[in-house]
Amino acid sequence: MTSEFKYEKNGLIIDYKHMMKPLNSSKFAISSSDLKEKSYLFNDMGAYIEERRRSGELGFMDLPYDLKQVDEIESLVESKRSIMDNLLVLGIGGSALGNIAINNALNDPFNSTYTNGNYPRIFVEDNIDPDRIHSLFEHIDWKRTVVNVITKSGTTPETMATFFIAKKIMQEKMGEDYRKHIVVTTDPEKGVLRRHAVEEGFDILNIPRNVGGRFSVLSPVGLFSACSSGIDLGELLRGAREMDTECKASDFYHNPAYLIAAMKYSAYMHGIRINVLMPYSSLLKAFSQWYCQLIGESLGKKDDLDGKICFHGITPVSSSGTTDQHSQLQLYVEGPEDKLIIFLFVGNHKSVVPIYDRELPDELSYFRGRSLNDLIISEGKGTSLSLLESGRLNFEIMIDEISPYSIGGLFYLFEMVTLIMGRLLNINAFDQPGVDRSKILTREFLRRKKV
Amino acid sequence: MTSEFKYEKNGLIIDYKHMMKPLNSSKFAISSSDLKEKSYLFNDMGAYIEERRRSGELGFMDLPYDLKQVDEIESLVESKRSIMDNLLVLGIGGSALGNIAINNALNDPFNSTYTNGNYPRIFVEDNIDPDRIHSLFEHIDWKRTVVNVITKSGTTPETMATFFIAKKIMQEKMGEDYRKHIVVTTDPEKGVLRRHAVEEGFDILNIPRNVGGRFSVLSPVGLFSACSSGIDLGELLRGAREMDTECKASDFYHNPAYLIAAMKYSAYMHGIRINVLMPYSSLLKAFSQWYCQLIGESLGKKDDLDGKICFHGITPVSSSGTTDQHSQLQLYVEGPEDKLIIFLFVGNHKSVVPIYDRELPDELSYFRGRSLNDLIISEGKGTSLSLLESGRLNFEIMIDEISPYSIGGLFYLFEMVTLIMGRLLNINAFDQPGVDRSKILTREFLRRKKV
Repeated sequence: MTSEFKYEKNGLIIDYKHMMKPLNSSKFAISSSDLKEKSYLFNDMGAYIEERRRSGELGFMDLPYDLKQVDEIESLVESKRSIMDNLLVLGIGGSALGNIAINNALNDPFNSTYTNGNYPRIFVEDNIDPDRIHSLFEHIDWKRTVVNVITKSGTTPETMATFFIAKKIMQEKMGEDYRKHIVVTTDPEKGVLRRHAVEEGFDILNIPRNVGGRFSVLSPVGLFSACSSGIDLGELLRGAREMDTECKASDFYHNPAYLIAAMKYSAYMHGIRINVLMPYSSLLKAFSQWYCQLIGESLGKKDDLDGKICFHGITPVSSSGTTDQHSQLQLYVEGPEDKLIIFLFVGNHKSVVPIYDRELPDELSYFRGRSLNDLIISEGKGTSLSLLESGRLNFEIMIDEISPYSIGGLFYLFEMVTLIMGRLLNINAFDQPGVDRSKILTREFLRRKKV
Repeated sequence: MTSEFKYEKNGLIIDYKHMMKPLNSSKFAISSSDLKEKSYLFNDMGAYIEERRRSGELGFMDLPYDLKQVDEIESLVESKRSIMDNLLVLGIGGSALGNIAINNALNDPFNSTYTNGNYPRIFVEDNIDPDRIHSLFEHIDWKRTVVNVITKSGTTPETMATFFIAKKIMQEKMGEDYRKHIVVTTDPEKGVLRRHAVEEGFDILNIPRNVGGRFSVLSPVGLFSACSSGIDLGELLRGAREMDTECKASDFYHNPAYLIAAMKYSAYMHGIRINVLMPYSSLLKAFSQWYCQLIGESLGKKDDLDGKICFHGITPVSSSGTTDQHSQLQLYVEGPEDKLIIFLFVGNHKSVVPIYDRELPDELSYFRGRSLNDLIISEGKGTSLSLLESGRLNFEIMIDEISPYSIGGLFYLFEMVTLIMGRLLNINAFDQPGVDRSKILTREFLRRKKV
């Protein structure tokens, strides 16, 4: 009867049977009729989204259809190829996490350790740790490095401080030539960085006005470094476009974004306000960190849209299977009942690594004839079932393989889920008013002689 | 008046003024008299700990005094030096996180990208992702690699599966010589791995019987890779020993472990069950992941010591300053009031990186004459204060510098805090009964033809 609670299309499976009542006794489990009732919340969702999209508020939804950016990025990358043994991306938050996620998922895991010379080493520096920056800036061969500095406003202090340090070194090493080593990704019209880039004659890529940082991965923000690594931008966007089509399905049970949002929302309404995203693939670790910003910043809001104090928010936790079975699973199984665990499985990894060894001791004979591939998925399934047995809700998302197509689709899917969650919680999912005060206080501390 | 709520000794500062009532209006804030009352909970803590230590239950407390292990590890590392361009550590959970934390804190951040030839590249592989393992095992020069396989029981499936794959490759590449490339860290008497290692004649390091995985960083588990990187084991242990002395102070206000435990416990009793550890240093990122296992697995317990169901647990979140100001801060400031934020600051980084640039635009003139060092600490202090203003509790731990001494001390301090929290919550902080079921189910899935 498991197929009853399953969505499956285009290589994506959402299996939510471990959320449903018949199979367990958790007080938070959902019954089929609960779910049917929840589905009514989505009756006008399509119309709501379409209206906001037409009014231009949801710029991220247009990105998969913007093929002009692909041509522009591809020719810019081509023109830099001959000086790009290294690509240094300077950005933070939404200007870094998408880059790291794409690179992690689709590039060779040891690309920067064992460079093959075909594609650059990628360094995404999203912090201002003096020791780390010092070490990298000492080691890197600047004459064979392109710097992509990304900030929409142009005033992000961490990014701009690091950029001016890099720029000074490049000027010292290369004189006027340094200019062709810089690619600026910023607002299409305004801001300090844009002005500076125009004055200096740097190459510029535009972030559309109506696309916010955490929704910008499929804009030049994420696509320039992806293209530099030889990743097929067309496929990334095609995956997102086809997901867009799926997310328009009016039938609740055939709309992947509605289903995931319904699971999260049901849990939330039962007081389960921590969402653990647990990919069973080292290649999706950074994807789950990208997701942490997406839902952390979008849904963590003090005021709702009617101006009432709500203190809404889902606390995202990035977990890693199988690794965190040996670190966090004890807490998930026995600790407070405050977590929804979302498994992210991969059907077919690129490589198959057999475990077989003639010398396996008897205690490990269950490995015989098996591969790491069999082991990792068995551990995921075993963990999912053990959580259910302890009454801990969880559901599974499975992609058939890790490819530009599937990753493009996943980004878009989670963005849609976040937009929808914002509507269900009656909050603005696109601003971040709570961080301004920290910026003001930072400047005050910086002005003092001694911090 | 800030110095009133501050502990300071041996380069360690604990500043808890942002927990205290006079300075904010949070309903969760602690008054001086609350704190005095809390301190009574610690009256018999020293005697309790001493008794358990004497009975041999707290093996981790003896590790800093075990200087014999240092000699043994140092000579083993010396004997491998000539074939160790790479050190591949195979372990998971407590057999990996401490290694990664030490390496992250004390090794060059780009050690494996830009190897200097003096010390090996370190790879700690704590997952069984087929693509990642395939890539590494293809790239690595096995004849110049030492493999340190770590599992106390000898039956950890992820570690043993990967080990037998590596072993087979090494046998093919090196014939009988492969044996001298392997160092086994395991139980001193029993287990499959020990038996296998004795039969094959591998070098063996012992994990003391009474030291559990997540408390084993200062045993050969963490020390072999540290020593390979040229890190001073004597200083690591000296830092832990001096911290042990401080944690014996009977005066509550002069005992760093008591103070931190009191802060965490007070918050917990007010329903604040998420602890965010937020280091403002890229070098302490892995330390915070080590901490996540320590408190997640130690304190997440269904039953208390009287056999009553309690579902205790603190959900640890590893956050990274300044990076997560652009990802999670919005949630921390405006979201649900369920988080205690613990800042981890560094007084003096090894490098000073000035930002000064003649060409700084006016909008960024506040950088002038400042360094990344000034900026990172100002951001930390600004963030801490902005959280307080929003009524979100937080406190600061500052180490004067990142050194083997300070890191050894930090490990030990957090271990003591965890032991104490276990007592306060009346649970067993040293077992993990909730993960067994997942292991059984994993084997069942693995036995099936198709998962």
